Amino acid sequence: MRVSELSRRSGVPTATIKYYLREGLLAPGEATAATQAVYNDGHVRRLRLIRALIGVRGLSVSDTKKVLDAISEPGTGTHDTLGLVFGVIGPDKPECGEPPAPDQEVDALIEELGWTVYELSPARQKVAETVAALSSLGLDFDWRSLVPYAKLAEQTAVLDLDQLESTEDTLEKAERALLVTVLLEPALLALRRLAQESESLSRYPR
Amino acid sequence: MRVSELSRRSGVPTATIKYYLREGLLAPGEATAATQAVYNDGHVRRLRLIRALIGVRGLSVSDTKKVLDAISEPGTGTHDTLGLVFGVIGPDKPECGEPPAPDQEVDALIEELGWTVYELSPARQKVAETVAALSSLGLDFDWRSLVPYAKLAEQTAVLDLDQLESTEDTLEKAERALLVTVLLEPALLALRRLAQESESLSRYPR
Repeated sequence: MRVSELSRRSGVPTATIKYYLREGLLAPGEATAATQAVYNDGHVRRLRLIRALIGVRGLSVSDTKKVLDAISEPGTGTHDTLGLVFGVIGPDKPECGEPPAPDQEVDALIEELGWTVYELSPARQKVAETVAALSSLGLDFDWRSLVPYAKLAEQTAVLDLDQLESTEDTLEKAERALLVTVLLEPALLALRRLAQESESLSRYPR
Repeated sequence: MRVSELSRRSGVPTATIKYYLREGLLAPGEATAATQAVYNDGHVRRLRLIRALIGVRGLSVSDTKKVLDAISEPGTGTHDTLGLVFGVIGPDKPECGEPPAPDQEVDALIEELGWTVYELSPARQKVAETVAALSSLGLDFDWRSLVPYAKLAEQTAVLDLDQLESTEDTLEKAERALLVTVLLEPALLALRRLAQESESLSRYPR
């Protein structure tokens, strides 16, 4: 298809598509003339993914490129590719190459849960910061307080990984993993708020 | 205590304390002379709360003021005060006075779960946006896909509300609710990442 058709099918304006091509977010189409190229279904799918990461999740263009490059790296097994998706993208945004300091509280938590996780996962650092913040505020809170939360996170992760079972293709699994992980985040936090509100009403009736 | 002692005990520099006083985030101390005032433990606690919201959670000064004003409003019952905390603070940041459009998918989800939630909660809108985004990407995803996630959110909310049981004071409950809700968010997302990584390794061994 031509770029105009690609624009129509993906809902992304032609000028934006050309910008993504220049920035390397989107692979070039197959050249048919000096100034013309044709695109395929893979381009449509990639554009939807870019739109989701930038438009819905608010990632910057350069962070989006890092994430897309990471999942397209060839020759890596399913777990390593998924590990990249789950590990590289920090909880808020990609924080590539920022090794966290080892933290005894987080190590104790992970051992208690029996999880096998990469030592340099930026998520470890986030957990450590939260425990430190809550205990510095004088709340009686340490890694043990996080155990029941972590067990619920475990069940959430099972649901997440179930979403990837519908395809065998590693790259497609990675794309789905990225979407489910990143796009579901605001909804999971929102569901927690709604559940808190409902639970609060049942404990403290008006 | 003098402002220097308040600074020492809260860990917030004097210049920053004076800025918070000017912006109305912190109530004035009791004046003892034209240019001197004394502060109490309430000021220390409030400063820690401000530091947590701005420093750890990254809220702006004006959003922090909105949140603090909302929970200090006198004459509201426990559920109404907590409802403010859970409802007013959007999943990302406070989005006061932005009524969401009614959404049939979200209504169906909430009815299925039997939750009682405020019709204008900004969290409803977030859920609706996510369902729309995921289904626009061609993923087979609708409100029914969120039901198992919502049931886990329900259990998370029970843990959250348990954290408030240690105090009877409504304002203190609201402060704890704010801290637990807002500060735990990055950790909950990080725990999900770590759990995904561990679950991925057990499904797709190297």
